[in-house]
Amino acid sequence: MSNSSSFVTYDLATLATLLDAELVGDPDTKIHALATLKSAGVGDLSFYHNPRYYSDLSNTKASAVILSKNQAVNYSGNKLLTENPYICYARSSHLFKPKTSDKSSIAHSASIDPSAKLGSNVVIGENVVIAENVDIASNVVIAPNTVIGAGVQIGEASYIEANVSIAHDVVIGKRAHIYSGVVIGSDGFGFAQENGKYLKIAQLGKVIIGDDVEVGANTCIDRGAIDDTVIGNGVKIDNQVQIAHNVEIGDDTVICGCSAIAGSVKIGRNCVIAGAVGIINHVEIADGVTVTAMTLVNQSIREPGSYSSGTGLSRTAEWKKNIVRFRQLDKLMKGFKKDK
Amino acid sequence: MSNSSSFVTYDLATLATLLDAELVGDPDTKIHALATLKSAGVGDLSFYHNPRYYSDLSNTKASAVILSKNQAVNYSGNKLLTENPYICYARSSHLFKPKTSDKSSIAHSASIDPSAKLGSNVVIGENVVIAENVDIASNVVIAPNTVIGAGVQIGEASYIEANVSIAHDVVIGKRAHIYSGVVIGSDGFGFAQENGKYLKIAQLGKVIIGDDVEVGANTCIDRGAIDDTVIGNGVKIDNQVQIAHNVEIGDDTVICGCSAIAGSVKIGRNCVIAGAVGIINHVEIADGVTVTAMTLVNQSIREPGSYSSGTGLSRTAEWKKNIVRFRQLDKLMKGFKKDK
Amino acid sequence: MSNSSSFVTYDLATLATLLDAELVGDPDTKIHALATLKSAGVGDLSFYHNPRYYSDLSNTKASAVILSKNQAVNYSGNKLLTENPYICYARSSHLFKPKTSDKSSIAHSASIDPSAKLGSNVVIGENVVIAENVDIASNVVIAPNTVIGAGVQIGEASYIEANVSIAHDVVIGKRAHIYSGVVIGSDGFGFAQENGKYLKIAQLGKVIIGDDVEVGANTCIDRGAIDDTVIGNGVKIDNQVQIAHNVEIGDDTVICGCSAIAGSVKIGRNCVIAGAVGIINHVEIADGVTVTAMTLVNQSIREPGSYSSGTGLSRTAEWKKNIVRFRQLDKLMKGFKKDK
Repeated sequence: MSNSSSFVTYDLATLATLLDAELVGDPDTKIHALATLKSAGVGDLSFYHNPRYYSDLSNTKASAVILSKNQAVNYSGNKLLTENPYICYARSSHLFKPKTSDKSSIAHSASIDPSAKLGSNVVIGENVVIAENVDIASNVVIAPNTVIGAGVQIGEASYIEANVSIAHDVVIGKRAHIYSGVVIGSDGFGFAQENGKYLKIAQLGKVIIGDDVEVGANTCIDRGAIDDTVIGNGVKIDNQVQIAHNVEIGDDTVICGCSAIAGSVKIGRNCVIAGAVGIINHVEIADGVTVTAMTLVNQSIREPGSYSSGTGLSRTAEWKKNIVRFRQLDKLMKGFKKDK
Repeated sequence: MSNSSSFVTYDLATLATLLDAELVGDPDTKIHALATLKSAGVGDLSFYHNPRYYSDLSNTKASAVILSKNQAVNYSGNKLLTENPYICYARSSHLFKPKTSDKSSIAHSASIDPSAKLGSNVVIGENVVIAENVDIASNVVIAPNTVIGAGVQIGEASYIEANVSIAHDVVIGKRAHIYSGVVIGSDGFGFAQENGKYLKIAQLGKVIIGDDVEVGANTCIDRGAIDDTVIGNGVKIDNQVQIAHNVEIGDDTVICGCSAIAGSVKIGRNCVIAGAVGIINHVEIADGVTVTAMTLVNQSIREPGSYSSGTGLSRTAEWKKNIVRFRQLDKLMKGFKKDK
Repeated sequence: MSNSSSFVTYDLATLATLLDAELVGDPDTKIHALATLKSAGVGDLSFYHNPRYYSDLSNTKASAVILSKNQAVNYSGNKLLTENPYICYARSSHLFKPKTSDKSSIAHSASIDPSAKLGSNVVIGENVVIAENVDIASNVVIAPNTVIGAGVQIGEASYIEANVSIAHDVVIGKRAHIYSGVVIGSDGFGFAQENGKYLKIAQLGKVIIGDDVEVGANTCIDRGAIDDTVIGNGVKIDNQVQIAHNVEIGDDTVICGCSAIAGSVKIGRNCVIAGAVGIINHVEIADGVTVTAMTLVNQSIREPGSYSSGTGLSRTAEWKKNIVRFRQLDKLMKGFKKDK
């Protein structure tokens, strides 16, 4: 896991302190990277949290392993004991992240309207374009070639990656991470039909994004038609998700890659929308709902729990026979009842 | 609905004239924004077109409401009467759209090949790159950081947003709106297989886009292999749609977000392809077809009407049992017939 | 098929030599473009490989046709005879590709960190940003407005189109073609849940891409959490594909448009994943597997062959009845067995 752009080394005692873990073993052990139990070697820290990897634990060449106190007996090497090894691993991961340079505070090639307000310690990359009346808080980073429209507000310590497009009047909270290729505030897809032609409806709402939100690469979030599109605090959105106009997403909900959320959908708090899910317009989803991968949500979900659709995987040869039968289902079942 | 970048005010008499509506009420009422019946307050114009919102109509605090003549009796406040309130709302929406500045006609940082032809009143944003032999008609706007390849033609009054990539020899009609992150004219996905390896087929066709077309954010339209990929007049394409090489889409067809249209598909006129639909290659779809959300179109559709696939939503626990049965359908139904 | 940016002309004898085909007819025939049998006219070369187009062969106005030796008798005009006409067409297509200019070797507006190493004959477009410690081999082209992060390596003769974002420490092999809007090396979607909140896991792995790989427009390939995301040699990836962290794809596998591949999926060699397929996390797929369009792969596939899911297309009216029955399947079949 050697990244060319940085190297760090910790001794195990320091790591134990930083991670608030109990050290059992040699405090002077040098650690310079994270690794899986299987791929770890000298100088690597690993972690054990899933019984599936028990044999990897026995065989690991890691210099130290994070594990839970009640598993301590299963490993004789250097260890960091903690309540929840996966959380401890998550914390430790940030200690080994390559430091990006971000040296030049404001690139000469950036084009920043004089009316824009920039907080302290802001980094603006090459060829960034910032329009009038933009308000960027302190400690924000905007990577190269990103375009920020008029009146946009970006909260403290947010990080906008390269080649992002943020249209006018979008509001982004604190500590957001917006990845490359994201488009926020594009027009909602709204038309009125008149004599077979589509008349564009100007999209006058904003996009309002809370604090601690991630928006994955190439995801789109459209502005509202009249009211706003609203993304709650702590929402995590993966790559290539489509969020249409006037969608509202509750706090701490997760949307996985390639899901398509149509106009005016309301999703509650603490939901998990798995990958490639489709949700039709105006659907409402309660708090605490899980929707499994590639499900079509064609009706509202009023109660927490897990929901699915699709047929599951078959060999194509069998599938072809079964889909013929699927199309006969209603007729068959009517006949079946008659017989009884 | 206050956008930081603009404010407008109309008196109601002016709005009635602009919208060709019949005014009933105080002609001097000041209107500065559109709002839904529910969220409207003083100074807002709203509209009523769907009986579902009848109670909102009774309770609205809007300063005026657009509604149809035969509903006039149901509302006692200021009103604009019209044949079709939704169309009237669509028209009015453009009156409240924030004015973008677009002041600098050609940004100094734009890189424009000397052979490019630019019409009158063209706006070219910062860091736009325009290659040789490009032809851009009058009143076109190209937003910052967009790249236009050699030989591209863009028709009058088209608007290309930020961070768009248009490859060589693409032809775009009049009044197009191309949103951020769109890629037009990328190579079609064409290979010939030889001894288990894939040999690239150069993609020699163009993309030809008609007049009055919208292409949503992060949508891709590939160039044809030999012949062209063709998008008709008035076609509206939402975000993150994939249109493969040699697809042809008829006039006034709508394609909703995240739909994937494979190579050489032909879609007729006035179709509605809902979100996240998949259409396999070489399929032909007649005029006037609707395909519902997340449907797999695995065969041609010869007649107008509505088409669907999928299983609809279930609780995961029940779904797991039912998909086991789905895989047994053909066997079951053979047994069932035998019994009879 | 006239592209404004280039014209080429070959005589048929030269083409026969370049394509290693047997010429029957007039060696001086001038050929300046490729065309389908149906659209071809004077000066066009066409090809015949699929019996479906037999009537087009009889009626073609092409100046010459590529066809297989055993079909030679079916066509009396000028012909190029070859073992495999489709392969021969693929080869010929490159002869008619418009030549891009790429004249300026390094654009003045490009921002290249002094520590970056550039091979010979490299083309760097306008507004390209190249961070520290990047290593770009000979004959690489990087089109305008693309951003290359720290420590990235790009192999010989690779072509990176406009508006691409490549994050730090990504490794790309030789002769890659990366299309516009692609994002490589964005963070994997990894979080640890703690008291209902999501704690970000720093993504420390790289993306490693082999030789001869294509990555289609707006596709995303995330970096690994700890180990790397690995794309084998000869892999062809279409537009808008999502490849999550720690995915491994074997050599010469094809992934069609809009497919979503979740974390830690392993796909073998010589597989074909059709369009809009979803593959859930940790699934393993054997060598030589085909997955048909829009299939949900919700379990590992251990044997070669073709796999599918979904219900196939129905009229919406019938579909609505059948999905009600689908939800009753398990109950029905239990009842059915009991009766017997």
